Amino acid sequence: MTLIRQLGNQDEFVGFYLLKSLEIKQTNSTPPKDYLDMMLCDASGELPAKLWDASPTDKETFFPMGLVKVKGLVQTYRDKLQVKILQIRPAKAEDGVKLTDFIRSAPISSEELVQTIRNVVNGIADDEIREVVRFCVGKVEEKLEHAPAAKTHHHAYFGGLAYHMVRMLELGDFLCNQRPFLNADLLKAGIILHDIAKPEEMVAQLGIVSEYSVQGRLVGHIAMASNWITEAAVRLGIGLESPKVLSLQHLVLSHHNLGEWGSPVQPQMAEAVALHFIDAIDAKLQMVEDALNTTPETEEWTPLIRGLENKAVYRTKLQG
Amino acid sequence: MTLIRQLGNQDEFVGFYLLKSLEIKQTNSTPPKDYLDMMLCDASGELPAKLWDASPTDKETFFPMGLVKVKGLVQTYRDKLQVKILQIRPAKAEDGVKLTDFIRSAPISSEELVQTIRNVVNGIADDEIREVVRFCVGKVEEKLEHAPAAKTHHHAYFGGLAYHMVRMLELGDFLCNQRPFLNADLLKAGIILHDIAKPEEMVAQLGIVSEYSVQGRLVGHIAMASNWITEAAVRLGIGLESPKVLSLQHLVLSHHNLGEWGSPVQPQMAEAVALHFIDAIDAKLQMVEDALNTTPETEEWTPLIRGLENKAVYRTKLQG
Amino acid sequence: MTLIRQLGNQDEFVGFYLLKSLEIKQTNSTPPKDYLDMMLCDASGELPAKLWDASPTDKETFFPMGLVKVKGLVQTYRDKLQVKILQIRPAKAEDGVKLTDFIRSAPISSEELVQTIRNVVNGIADDEIREVVRFCVGKVEEKLEHAPAAKTHHHAYFGGLAYHMVRMLELGDFLCNQRPFLNADLLKAGIILHDIAKPEEMVAQLGIVSEYSVQGRLVGHIAMASNWITEAAVRLGIGLESPKVLSLQHLVLSHHNLGEWGSPVQPQMAEAVALHFIDAIDAKLQMVEDALNTTPETEEWTPLIRGLENKAVYRTKLQG
Amino acid sequence: MTLIRQLGNQDEFVGFYLLKSLEIKQTNSTPPKDYLDMMLCDASGELPAKLWDASPTDKETFFPMGLVKVKGLVQTYRDKLQVKILQIRPAKAEDGVKLTDFIRSAPISSEELVQTIRNVVNGIADDEIREVVRFCVGKVEEKLEHAPAAKTHHHAYFGGLAYHMVRMLELGDFLCNQRPFLNADLLKAGIILHDIAKPEEMVAQLGIVSEYSVQGRLVGHIAMASNWITEAAVRLGIGLESPKVLSLQHLVLSHHNLGEWGSPVQPQMAEAVALHFIDAIDAKLQMVEDALNTTPETEEWTPLIRGLENKAVYRTKLQG
Amino acid sequence: MTLIRQLGNQDEFVGFYLLKSLEIKQTNSTPPKDYLDMMLCDASGELPAKLWDASPTDKETFFPMGLVKVKGLVQTYRDKLQVKILQIRPAKAEDGVKLTDFIRSAPISSEELVQTIRNVVNGIADDEIREVVRFCVGKVEEKLEHAPAAKTHHHAYFGGLAYHMVRMLELGDFLCNQRPFLNADLLKAGIILHDIAKPEEMVAQLGIVSEYSVQGRLVGHIAMASNWITEAAVRLGIGLESPKVLSLQHLVLSHHNLGEWGSPVQPQMAEAVALHFIDAIDAKLQMVEDALNTTPETEEWTPLIRGLENKAVYRTKLQG
Amino acid sequence: MTLIRQLGNQDEFVGFYLLKSLEIKQTNSTPPKDYLDMMLCDASGELPAKLWDASPTDKETFFPMGLVKVKGLVQTYRDKLQVKILQIRPAKAEDGVKLTDFIRSAPISSEELVQTIRNVVNGIADDEIREVVRFCVGKVEEKLEHAPAAKTHHHAYFGGLAYHMVRMLELGDFLCNQRPFLNADLLKAGIILHDIAKPEEMVAQLGIVSEYSVQGRLVGHIAMASNWITEAAVRLGIGLESPKVLSLQHLVLSHHNLGEWGSPVQPQMAEAVALHFIDAIDAKLQMVEDALNTTPETEEWTPLIRGLENKAVYRTKLQG
Repeated sequence: MTLIRQLGNQDEFVGFYLLKSLEIKQTNSTPPKDYLDMMLCDASGELPAKLWDASPTDKETFFPMGLVKVKGLVQTYRDKLQVKILQIRPAKAEDGVKLTDFIRSAPISSEELVQTIRNVVNGIADDEIREVVRFCVGKVEEKLEHAPAAKTHHHAYFGGLAYHMVRMLELGDFLCNQRPFLNADLLKAGIILHDIAKPEEMVAQLGIVSEYSVQGRLVGHIAMASNWITEAAVRLGIGLESPKVLSLQHLVLSHHNLGEWGSPVQPQMAEAVALHFIDAIDAKLQMVEDALNTTPETEEWTPLIRGLENKAVYRTKLQG
Repeated sequence: MTLIRQLGNQDEFVGFYLLKSLEIKQTNSTPPKDYLDMMLCDASGELPAKLWDASPTDKETFFPMGLVKVKGLVQTYRDKLQVKILQIRPAKAEDGVKLTDFIRSAPISSEELVQTIRNVVNGIADDEIREVVRFCVGKVEEKLEHAPAAKTHHHAYFGGLAYHMVRMLELGDFLCNQRPFLNADLLKAGIILHDIAKPEEMVAQLGIVSEYSVQGRLVGHIAMASNWITEAAVRLGIGLESPKVLSLQHLVLSHHNLGEWGSPVQPQMAEAVALHFIDAIDAKLQMVEDALNTTPETEEWTPLIRGLENKAVYRTKLQG
Repeated sequence: MTLIRQLGNQDEFVGFYLLKSLEIKQTNSTPPKDYLDMMLCDASGELPAKLWDASPTDKETFFPMGLVKVKGLVQTYRDKLQVKILQIRPAKAEDGVKLTDFIRSAPISSEELVQTIRNVVNGIADDEIREVVRFCVGKVEEKLEHAPAAKTHHHAYFGGLAYHMVRMLELGDFLCNQRPFLNADLLKAGIILHDIAKPEEMVAQLGIVSEYSVQGRLVGHIAMASNWITEAAVRLGIGLESPKVLSLQHLVLSHHNLGEWGSPVQPQMAEAVALHFIDAIDAKLQMVEDALNTTPETEEWTPLIRGLENKAVYRTKLQG
Repeated sequence: MTLIRQLGNQDEFVGFYLLKSLEIKQTNSTPPKDYLDMMLCDASGELPAKLWDASPTDKETFFPMGLVKVKGLVQTYRDKLQVKILQIRPAKAEDGVKLTDFIRSAPISSEELVQTIRNVVNGIADDEIREVVRFCVGKVEEKLEHAPAAKTHHHAYFGGLAYHMVRMLELGDFLCNQRPFLNADLLKAGIILHDIAKPEEMVAQLGIVSEYSVQGRLVGHIAMASNWITEAAVRLGIGLESPKVLSLQHLVLSHHNLGEWGSPVQPQMAEAVALHFIDAIDAKLQMVEDALNTTPETEEWTPLIRGLENKAVYRTKLQG
Repeated sequence: MTLIRQLGNQDEFVGFYLLKSLEIKQTNSTPPKDYLDMMLCDASGELPAKLWDASPTDKETFFPMGLVKVKGLVQTYRDKLQVKILQIRPAKAEDGVKLTDFIRSAPISSEELVQTIRNVVNGIADDEIREVVRFCVGKVEEKLEHAPAAKTHHHAYFGGLAYHMVRMLELGDFLCNQRPFLNADLLKAGIILHDIAKPEEMVAQLGIVSEYSVQGRLVGHIAMASNWITEAAVRLGIGLESPKVLSLQHLVLSHHNLGEWGSPVQPQMAEAVALHFIDAIDAKLQMVEDALNTTPETEEWTPLIRGLENKAVYRTKLQG
Repeated sequence: MTLIRQLGNQDEFVGFYLLKSLEIKQTNSTPPKDYLDMMLCDASGELPAKLWDASPTDKETFFPMGLVKVKGLVQTYRDKLQVKILQIRPAKAEDGVKLTDFIRSAPISSEELVQTIRNVVNGIADDEIREVVRFCVGKVEEKLEHAPAAKTHHHAYFGGLAYHMVRMLELGDFLCNQRPFLNADLLKAGIILHDIAKPEEMVAQLGIVSEYSVQGRLVGHIAMASNWITEAAVRLGIGLESPKVLSLQHLVLSHHNLGEWGSPVQPQMAEAVALHFIDAIDAKLQMVEDALNTTPETEEWTPLIRGLENKAVYRTKLQG
């Protein structure tokens, strides 16, 4: 079975794939004909695909987020690859394929990531900080096992948010050792809370974001997390103006660093400065790593990466 | 008694004034001598003043925010007016002067302004919106009678915040009549809540801001108001994700319009767009009106106004 | 007859519409075939439409800005609706339809709007200001009955410019009452003159702008209005450097507020500050109102609105 | 007699100078004493100076823009040189000094510069363009003999504006020869008109700007020049919308290139693009030349030059 | 034979053209068919062209940068002209056409331009400056005969870089005469070196850039030229920190003026300021001249020009 | 002996300090008197100080960068602390104080830091990368023991540059372990080379920068380092266009990330992205740590920190 990342122009292939999206459309011809416009994906990448001359049965058989077996031909259209589907049928039980094999996901299992996060929460020494963090994590605990960290920007896959958190926690741990003046409880709490509202800001399934929620657009994950800390404090009986509550809200509110990036206040505590840069370095390096991994090895340059000043990345080569 | 706004270079004068600030300093001379460095103010404006050769008694007699009787001489120092104090004593009971006569304040009495606001709150038709607004107003009700709307930017005087709200409510009322598709309850609520946390963001006395509070710097009045709405909803048993709560939070969070001006989300409801512009037009026109009022009538141009792209305003004259 | 705003995917419909634009194009097929690429519009909105296999007669029968009777089928192409035309013929006299029923227009009749403007001009107390305004209005009096206020930005329809002026005059009147230090004559004059050159800056028919004029591109409506005031003063024998002429030119030149928005000077008179914000609030709220009105009621969000920081607007709903 | 540019710390000197400004001020001492705070200048530069313990006679004897004979001592105050005046008296007829010897001026005589400009105007082939230019030049013909091109930015001295024009005309002539597609009449007209309103935008005496005029602040030299072209056309009976008038207005309006630099439209004709860059190159190189000329030869670096991105310029040296 | 610039919609034509690019693609039809997607060009411009139903022979016969004889029909597709090819064959020896007749090139022969540059190098008086310049020119001497100055921005044709240099040298010569304080050796050297690394930054054939080189993307022509000056100095035994080497590097490094335009330092020598503006004026006027030359004479406006703030240019017309 | 950081208003104290700067100035009095204007510093901070009525002997006895014993009184002048010197004498051999005790320095000894850097260089596996790095380090090896990393921005003290490098190397090591796709040799080389030219860009003594060098201003440390890599390659016989040389130059040239921050190219290799963020996080956290350490413990807020968006940092406190 061929991985999508390995398909090239004029390749004919057979394999199982996930229908990431599917729409019924009409051609320009007279009379217009129905065709299925789909996005095939597997864990290695995705490609647009067309089933021309779709029959009424076809239109009732296939649906988004379903697994299918496809025989196809890769063509070039407007300088991009797309698949002309020659044969297609839904996957059956006896095919022995399962959905989670066909989606991109973090390189560590979600269960393990969420368990690591739980352990870090338990390890927070300060009672009030720990309980506020636990309350907020509790609001999205189930979704944390699959939520991505973004729609397309970085860690946009199954378990991406938890993976981002865990990597940041590792780096935070390193920095607290290197610079003991940093408060480790606050930094851990800030890392876990900074994007904690993302699972409610975006509507996602299997790590794939379909859209932003109304709350996500009107309030945004930064203010949502601040509100959740308020809710936690009220429900836990902690004073709303205690230094701990203010510090946690400051960490969350300032983590995008600048107003034009969405933070209503700028970092003004050592831990808030650290949080912003830990977030930035982990997100940027993951974008680079993911772009290199999903670009064919024969290519010297990745596609343009929006989060890196819209620059492509060159595959480091030192021979020569 | 001469108003500070009317004093000119070389004027000698006698009058009662408020010591807006006072510090003991030393001259460069050998040996150095103590002097009092003060800011005299009345309702018309303020001027720096020096009491040279301050005696030990002087240093114990005068304090900030106290009323004094002064005989002084106006001089020019580095192109600005300052007062050399010839005689000074504290005001006494029999002088019959009172503090509030010496501070700048809104042209309508605070009591009246706050009563107007209360009436508007009572007039909100929707029960949940009304109770959330009432809860938030209740957190600062006492301070609302004197709080300014800003440190220096606009409405920076006794009752300035309430005055700003009332004027905005008048304009909001006009617009709801002109454009009935606007929801009047939401617009009223947005106007009252948008700056409701300012009395806790800044530390003020008699309408004069001395500094920002820790909470004001770390969280800011925009996120504070959003948090208060959350608190209100929790305590009143209203769902945190109900459209009303989200709408009120959106109004508050978006009222500065752009991220670089402090709003983590941009206006995305009709009432939020209206709120931003009602706020802007009232603040800007008040800056102009106040600048013209505190500039001597003989001057064609006001000083530069930071909130107006740092431009001066020309006193409109049509004869000619 | 179905309004364009109510059409959905796969709807088949019959009705009268205006051909806002029409072009003859060729398909990619071998041999290529001619088709008509049109924009159908009525007062509620517009949709692209194709007449495939256009006959020589078709190509001579239909023309832009003509009324037609259409039988069509709504399809989706590249995620947008477009109409496949099944039958089409020109409207006839006996159909009893008239052009102005099919264009978007202000909710108040043009005649009434222009009369209101004339009354306001007559009500300007100062003789020189009134005559300069009358002279400038006279240069575009006829076009004022149909000119839009912009190509697409806001009030982009029949009578849109006059409607924008009248609404601004209402708001200006309110503000002059609320803040009597504003000069009402100047503010009225500024509102009427600020966009007075727009009918010459853009080439429009029935409220639809087809392009900018050479003068509009090389000089622009802001400097054009300033030039017209100069012309008025020369012809009326008013001194070019009189405070009134300078004030009127200042109002016009500064009304876009910032250099990057096209104003060579920034507002430096109270009335100029007021004018800029009155213009802004009326334009922005009209964009919101128009976007909500032309978005199907089933949609929660309008399309992105360029003039609102490219944000969509959420349809306010308070039940829940 | 020592040139101001040559004075160093601790130098004692005698010479004639111009009092560019003068104010009576008071010291901090008890009792305060009057002193004269002056700016001494000659053609090579300027220095602040103090006459301590000014007598009543002193205060009546000296005035701004007067010539004086001074014996002084150069001191350092806050890292800058200033003169302590030991003796001072007004210049007398028998001293044989004249005002114009003490001001900075263009290296070519004003009469010659203005005559060159007149010759260029006469050489414009197109009748209408020539007469519009002549009309506008006529409005400031007298002031052109002494007006500076700016307050401090560049060519800020006696005859600076005419000198700037003449140098630009030379460069324009070179470019029209190098690129014959440029229209020479338009380019000459644009060069002469682009800053023609500056003598009315700023109030200047002997090439020294004291302030901006009200018209300069409310309308600005760019829109003023456009208005003058309108006036010329009306008075000369040329159509206001003729291509020539529009082209001249476009040249003037667009010559600052960007909105944020004050141009309401951007260059959209070949000659307008040329004009902007001819203006830029002449202004920038003159800033550099003037900064090098007024910096002591012993200094490697000039002071920071605001018009050059606030950078200092290094004195080119190639030995080594 | 028809020039490409003269072709209009529905024209049928026969002529020789260069295939600037060629790709084999498939149609959407069932089964998909191969077609050739080409760009035809001659010295006057370029047009996209399609050969539908390409035979296997066709696919082996035509290749990029080959000359062909074409019979074609001009059609409109998505508002742009494109050619439907009716007949096509490769050019033969007996056709008597040669490649260089079909590409855009500078109006002066490359040999002459390069000889002029060599003469200027020989005329540099200072031995070390001359030899550094000669060394750097030597690294690209062969490519200089055909290299363009940019991919699309300006002078994007055969010999464009040398033409740009020669025109700049003429203007530099004029300015050194007008302002003798400029060092002519440095300015000549700066003009020749400022873009000297461009032939290695971009991969070009016949003046047409196909892509940026790896070195061009990772280091860029500005730092490359600085490195070449270092290399020259090491190899010629000139001290790396001598004022001459630093000056040459400064000229090259600062010639884009601002950091956001790619210069790591800003101009801080008179010659560097001159260099930047000579470069700017020559590039901008050439953009305008080329845009006017390649726009049909019947068009009043050129297409938008990215390097001119994305504005179109109006064809100057003075009759009227 | 009192540390400077501990001095408060009105404190009288005795101690040894370093004269970081010293100038002879005159008072305004008649006749003016000489006084010494000095900056006293020790390892904890610095304070301005005045010796009034300086005798001729005083003026010859004291000089910048000398150690002195001072008896002084702390006063407030313009809201800032300054010292009035009561007695002062140069330090003597028998005082047993040494210069390096009085300057701020990295918390690890310079010798140890430089040795660590040497070890890392030796540990680079690739021969060519290692030798290029060794060559460049060799150019500043002596200065590396004391050079600061900046004039005021961050690590502005004795050994600051080496300390910055070593901390970055630790963080780089952590990231290479966390993300094995990063090339460790390149990242180490990039960290060591990125600021390697700073000791030649700035003139420093004992870790205190007095000014930028001519080379530093005209070329800048970024292009200087690129030039040094070129020089190393030429001298070591490595091809100038080998991937290793290009990669090292890319790392150095892109490490400021954006053009407006001084990088002529943006990061386009994984290691370049990592380098930029490692540099940023270490610099920012050091600014915070240094600001907290040099702010009196009684202060809640540090002064504004320019490198942190000009924000102050709040001293984290969690009790409450």
